[in-house]
Amino acid sequence: MNRGWRSVSVPIFYSFVPFLFSVWKIAVFATQEPRIASPAVQLRPFRQRSLIPSQADSLWKITAGVVRSLTWTDAGTPISLGLWTVGDVVGVALSRVTPYELECLTDVQVQAIPRSHWRSITDQLIDHAQESQQLLAILRQERIRDRILAFLQWLSYKFGRESANGRVIELKLSHRAIAEILGTSRVTVTRTLGQLEEEGLMQRTRDHWILSHDVLMP
Amino acid sequence: MNRGWRSVSVPIFYSFVPFLFSVWKIAVFATQEPRIASPAVQLRPFRQRSLIPSQADSLWKITAGVVRSLTWTDAGTPISLGLWTVGDVVGVALSRVTPYELECLTDVQVQAIPRSHWRSITDQLIDHAQESQQLLAILRQERIRDRILAFLQWLSYKFGRESANGRVIELKLSHRAIAEILGTSRVTVTRTLGQLEEEGLMQRTRDHWILSHDVLMP
Repeated sequence: MNRGWRSVSVPIFYSFVPFLFSVWKIAVFATQEPRIASPAVQLRPFRQRSLIPSQADSLWKITAGVVRSLTWTDAGTPISLGLWTVGDVVGVALSRVTPYELECLTDVQVQAIPRSHWRSITDQLIDHAQESQQLLAILRQERIRDRILAFLQWLSYKFGRESANGRVIELKLSHRAIAEILGTSRVTVTRTLGQLEEEGLMQRTRDHWILSHDVLMP
Repeated sequence: MNRGWRSVSVPIFYSFVPFLFSVWKIAVFATQEPRIASPAVQLRPFRQRSLIPSQADSLWKITAGVVRSLTWTDAGTPISLGLWTVGDVVGVALSRVTPYELECLTDVQVQAIPRSHWRSITDQLIDHAQESQQLLAILRQERIRDRILAFLQWLSYKFGRESANGRVIELKLSHRAIAEILGTSRVTVTRTLGQLEEEGLMQRTRDHWILSHDVLMP
C-alpha cells in the first residue's frame, strides 16, 4: 500500500506541471500585450531643422520635440500636413503622400515602431487621424481671420497650458510658418495677428503667445 | 501487479488533461486574435441621403455604399472631411470635429465596431489617416484647376477601375458636391471640368467620368 501510494504520487505531481504552465500562460497573455513583444526601445536624436528619414515599413513615435510633416506642390510650394509632438506617431505610411518630409522644428527624439508593432499604437493612430481631420476643418474656413483663429485655438490645445489670462501657446512658430500651414501669405498672417492683439483676443509677449479665454472653445 | 497497474493508469490518463488543455489554449492564442473576441457582426442598413448616427465610443465599418463625413462652419457652410466606402471606418472618434455628420451618398450598410475592438482595425485606422492627409494635400493646391485634377486622380484610385481609355470613376458626384469638398464654387467646378474635357484629359459619358491615363499618377 505504501509502495502503491508512492508509485501514484509521481504522475499526480507531474500532472500539475502542464496545468501550472497553462495557468502561467493565461496569466501572461491576460496581462501583457499578446503576441506583441516590446520593441527594443532605441531613441534616435535629431537636431533642429534636420530631416528625419522616412521609410514605408516603419513609423516614428516622437519622444521629445516638435516635428512638421510636409509635402510640396509641383510648383515647389511647401504644404504642411501636420505638427506633431511627444506621443504622436509620424511616417509616410500614415500619409501615402509623396514627397513626404519630416522636418524637426526643435531638437527631436524619436523611436522607430516597425510594422509588426503597429497594433500596439492604436491610440496614436486614432490621434493622427483626428489631427488630420481637425486641420482639414481649419483649412476650409473661408475667411482667413477665422482660419487663423481656429488654428490658434488648435495650437493652444495641442501645445498649450492654462494660465490666468488664457491659454499659453508654448510652440513658437514664425508668421511665415503659419502662412505655409494655412495656405495664405506671411503679410496676411502678420496683419491678422496684429488685429487679434488689438481686439484683445491674444497677447504677445517676448516668449509666448497667450490666447484669451474669450476665443477658446467651450 | 495487475491491480497496481490499474491504480496507476487513472492518474496518468488524467495527467494529460491539463496538458492537452494547455496545448489547446496555446494553439488558440497563437492562431486567433488574442483577447479580442469577434464582435457579433450586425449590419445596419441606411438609405441614401440619410444620416448615420455617430457615437463617441463606437466606429462604423462600411460594408456597402459610400458615406461622406462633414462638419459645418459657424456660417453654416458644409465642410467635407472625407468620402468613405467599403472597408473604411468612420466615426466622430476619428475626427473630434464637431458638429460631425455621416451622410449616406448611396444606400449604405455599416457594422458597429465598439471601442474594445479598435485594436483589430489597425489597417483601417491607417487608411483613415492616409485619406485625411491626401485630402489635406489636395486642398492646399493653390490653383483650382490643380485642385480639381488632384481630386479626380484621387477619386479614380479610390472609386475607380481600369479601362482602355483611362480610369473610370464609379462614384457620381454632383458639381455642387465637388465644390463643397474642394472649397470652391459650383460654377468654377463646371467650367474647369468643361476645360479638362476639351483638353482630352477626361471624358464624360452618361453614366461615368473617365480620367485619361495622361493625368494619372505614375
